[in-house]
Amino acid sequence: MSTTADIEHVLAANRALYEAFEARDMDAMSDVWEHSDRVRCTHPGWPTLKGWGAVASSWFGLLSGPQRLQFIITDEEAEIVGDVAWVNCVENLLGDSVGSTVTSINLFVRSSEGVWKMIAHHGGGVSI
Amino acid sequence: MSTTADIEHVLAANRALYEAFEARDMDAMSDVWEHSDRVRCTHPGWPTLKGWGAVASSWFGLLSGPQRLQFIITDEEAEIVGDVAWVNCVENLLGDSVGSTVTSINLFVRSSEGVWKMIAHHGGGVSI
Repeated sequence: MSTTADIEHVLAANRALYEAFEARDMDAMSDVWEHSDRVRCTHPGWPTLKGWGAVASSWFGLLSGPQRLQFIITDEEAEIVGDVAWVNCVENLLGDSVGSTVTSINLFVRSSEGVWKMIAHHGGGVSI
Repeated sequence: MSTTADIEHVLAANRALYEAFEARDMDAMSDVWEHSDRVRCTHPGWPTLKGWGAVASSWFGLLSGPQRLQFIITDEEAEIVGDVAWVNCVENLLGDSVGSTVTSINLFVRSSEGVWKMIAHHGGGVSI
C-alpha cells in the first residue's frame, strides 16, 4: 500500500523537474533523473530520446537556450504500484512571447536508497 | 527479475491496443484496458481523459468514426519493474489521406490473474 507520505514524495520529485527547468539548474535537473540507459524523454513534438546521455544533452540545450519559461503545473495526480510511480499533470507554460499547454506523464522508479528517480517523461502539446 | 516471456507478454498487450484500433473492434479495445477510475488516456493533441468511462467513450468515438487508420508500430521497447510495465513505441499512421508519426508511452499493471492491463496511454505527435 502506498501512503500519503509516499504520494507526497512522488509529487515532490515531479515538482523538482519543473523547478529545475524554471531555475535553469542543470545540477538539479540531473538529480531528478535516474542515470541509466533505460531512461526515456519525449519533449513535445520531439522524437523520443533514449538513455541518460541523450536526455541530459537535451536538457542542457533547453536550459542554456535563450527562452525563459515559467511553469504553472496543475492537475497533478500520482499513482504508486510497488516501486513504480507515475504522475499525470498539465504544464501551463508562460514564455516571453508564447504560452502553451502541455500534458505530461512522468514515470518514476524508487531506488534502493528509497529515492524516487524519473525514468520517463512524455510531454505532448494540447491542440484541441 | 523480468523474463523474456514477461517482456513478450507486455509487448503482446501493447500490440493488442493497435490491433484493436486498426480492426475497429471495441470489445478487443475494452479487453486491453483496466476498467478503473485510475486509467488515463491522452490522444495526440487532446487533454488527458480520466477514468475508464471517459477513455472508453473516446475509443468508441474514434473506432466508429469515418477514418480508417493503419498502424505500423516500430521501436517497441518494454521495461518491467515488479507489477508495472511500460512500452515506448513509435506509431507510424497511414490513413486514407494523411500520414503522421506519433510517439507513445503505454503503461501496464499486472492484474491479480497475471494479465497485463493498460492503465495509461500517452501519445504525442512528432513535429520536428
